[in-house]
Amino acid sequence: MAKRKIVTLLTDFGTGDPYVAAMKGVILHGCPGAEFVDISHEVPAHNVLAGALVLGNAAPYFPPDTLHVAVVDPGVGTDRPILAGRFGGQTFLFPDNGIISVVASKLPLEGLVTVRNRQYLPPGPASATFHGRDVFAPVAAHILNGLDIRNLGTLPGRYTLLDMPAPTVGESTITGRVIYVDRFGNLITNLARTFLIEHTYMEELRVNCVGQDLGPLKHSYGYVAPGAMVALINSMGMIELAVNQGRACDVLGVGVGAEVCVGPLAGDAALTRKRV
Amino acid sequence: MAKRKIVTLLTDFGTGDPYVAAMKGVILHGCPGAEFVDISHEVPAHNVLAGALVLGNAAPYFPPDTLHVAVVDPGVGTDRPILAGRFGGQTFLFPDNGIISVVASKLPLEGLVTVRNRQYLPPGPASATFHGRDVFAPVAAHILNGLDIRNLGTLPGRYTLLDMPAPTVGESTITGRVIYVDRFGNLITNLARTFLIEHTYMEELRVNCVGQDLGPLKHSYGYVAPGAMVALINSMGMIELAVNQGRACDVLGVGVGAEVCVGPLAGDAALTRKRV
Amino acid sequence: MAKRKIVTLLTDFGTGDPYVAAMKGVILHGCPGAEFVDISHEVPAHNVLAGALVLGNAAPYFPPDTLHVAVVDPGVGTDRPILAGRFGGQTFLFPDNGIISVVASKLPLEGLVTVRNRQYLPPGPASATFHGRDVFAPVAAHILNGLDIRNLGTLPGRYTLLDMPAPTVGESTITGRVIYVDRFGNLITNLARTFLIEHTYMEELRVNCVGQDLGPLKHSYGYVAPGAMVALINSMGMIELAVNQGRACDVLGVGVGAEVCVGPLAGDAALTRKRV
Repeated sequence: MAKRKIVTLLTDFGTGDPYVAAMKGVILHGCPGAEFVDISHEVPAHNVLAGALVLGNAAPYFPPDTLHVAVVDPGVGTDRPILAGRFGGQTFLFPDNGIISVVASKLPLEGLVTVRNRQYLPPGPASATFHGRDVFAPVAAHILNGLDIRNLGTLPGRYTLLDMPAPTVGESTITGRVIYVDRFGNLITNLARTFLIEHTYMEELRVNCVGQDLGPLKHSYGYVAPGAMVALINSMGMIELAVNQGRACDVLGVGVGAEVCVGPLAGDAALTRKRV
Repeated sequence: MAKRKIVTLLTDFGTGDPYVAAMKGVILHGCPGAEFVDISHEVPAHNVLAGALVLGNAAPYFPPDTLHVAVVDPGVGTDRPILAGRFGGQTFLFPDNGIISVVASKLPLEGLVTVRNRQYLPPGPASATFHGRDVFAPVAAHILNGLDIRNLGTLPGRYTLLDMPAPTVGESTITGRVIYVDRFGNLITNLARTFLIEHTYMEELRVNCVGQDLGPLKHSYGYVAPGAMVALINSMGMIELAVNQGRACDVLGVGVGAEVCVGPLAGDAALTRKRV
Repeated sequence: MAKRKIVTLLTDFGTGDPYVAAMKGVILHGCPGAEFVDISHEVPAHNVLAGALVLGNAAPYFPPDTLHVAVVDPGVGTDRPILAGRFGGQTFLFPDNGIISVVASKLPLEGLVTVRNRQYLPPGPASATFHGRDVFAPVAAHILNGLDIRNLGTLPGRYTLLDMPAPTVGESTITGRVIYVDRFGNLITNLARTFLIEHTYMEELRVNCVGQDLGPLKHSYGYVAPGAMVALINSMGMIELAVNQGRACDVLGVGVGAEVCVGPLAGDAALTRKRV
């Protein structure tokens, strides 16, 4: 089988407007063999952090050499650069606003250029409001057709990474934050299993949010009764607060930014550091 | 043309989160020729009955040997089995929670196994919260690559079918229920044309819901004025209550579970049984 | 590479119900090589004008000979015809209710037939409520398989175009209307750049809506502060009212139908007609 020309798309365009389809049409115009996989078009409008989290938890599962085009781009039409990069054997095309941050934290950077070679940009003026269609799409077609991204421009002096919130380690608790709420109302935190393992014993942890004790970590949602709250390590390797068959965001009344504490099972004990 | 490796996906994951794309990435990893058709990712969270109805009214239209992967799975991470089955010449991969019920009522069962052959499951522990990515997707890739489902495990002792509500036949009316509300606000009932034909004359029926008389069955929406209520046999062969260019669920103020009665056109007459 | 059989779909079916997937299944049955690109399934229910705008701003970007199937069809099951047409080198299949209006205003008509040759329609009665699945899909498969649309029927005596609102040119202002609100809450008007250029100097215009002065046209959203209102020429070539990283429809409290005026920068001056 000839190598497929698969391109994923991540945007905040929604699927009700003509924008996503216009991008796909332009890509097909430039690369007749292109095949699309939508990562998401439901990123909240202008929310670069949410886009970064969705991209970073989807793109790494794709086969080598997949092209990922990410357009959550509140700075469209201003002088923010467009970048093309290689991370972990995959190719990314994205505005330089930090949307690559989660990918960059998971996959090794192997190459990065600012897209500015006019030879590969469409002739004439692009619209100032829809670079997805007028710049990203035609450049994506060139990459799908085999163009090495090094031909698109030169290494940028710097590129933008988001200032991701990090957990804080206190005397008796580790405090993190909710960074994402998914469709199920699950509250996903920035408390990574790998981080926690460095600092404490996972088996001895209880989880607390807005004064609610969610108890020790469970294996999955179904290990508590329907409607009960549960804390667990989710499929991203992060602590997640959920309600079995319910919506934790509604039950707890919190969203992105809410503090989540983990501490030893005996409430008044000091945090048990991991012995190594 | 070489046989295509088409896989449909039905989930309650929504399209805003990375979950669906992660599944697709894993499937492409295992089967580079895989091609996706989304049935729906908007099944209401944890709603197995809604998922069963959507799957059962979409999958039968696909060509023979299509693989359908259905993941509405509130029991993820518990010991509920994952099944692979052949129904009506097509292949289905699904959690054993009844989501196959409508398919099973329409297509003949031709084979069924519990997925448990570790040779075809990913090495190491799966996440406990995302079997869509960690179990369903890699197994789907094996099936797309040509694996006979009989290699995945053995016949289960039993498998789950939902207790679907059935109409009741009374002296002067047949009573059913709304089982699904679609995007248009149409109220789809469990009153099948085939069932009604066994019990009465279709041409003589009037339809009633919460005291509202919707009159005799019409041919289509446009046979009443815009804004008027209409009852008809829909494209699934079921009685449906609708409002021409409006939302019956809002106009009638009812949803899933609401009773719908059909009886003879002359209100006080007994139900006319069909003469055969 | 053999020519691909790409078909786009535009409907008001949403993606939560089985309807879109059933159409795709039927198309694949009739044309095993069919490949799908969704334009949108989120057209507001029964909203032919919105469907026309989405179709007309997406379809023209696709490669020649793409087949576009548009099913926003409140008249399903009545005697409204189904048409197949060639516009600008592409093929369209659609109900005769005006959904082709924006395409027809942008691309030259090259052929048009009423679909009625029973040889290419499915045997037996179609459902009266789901022609997408029972008529459009099988006819689409024939077209994808290479059938010339001239075989489907004969030239209609007339076909429906929507009565699109046109701007009015007054003494000191040009008045248009909001015709579409996109996912970002941007207010897209019927004031086309080409129309304005005929009547005035673009550089001298200020924009006003419900008494709010949005000032002169800017280059893009990011040329005003976050939260500030901005008027610009959008990617469709139309005047659009927006709020940088916000929702103009909410800030201005208006939607489709709202009046938008453009006039000379000096408020009391008469409209400066363009000197040619």
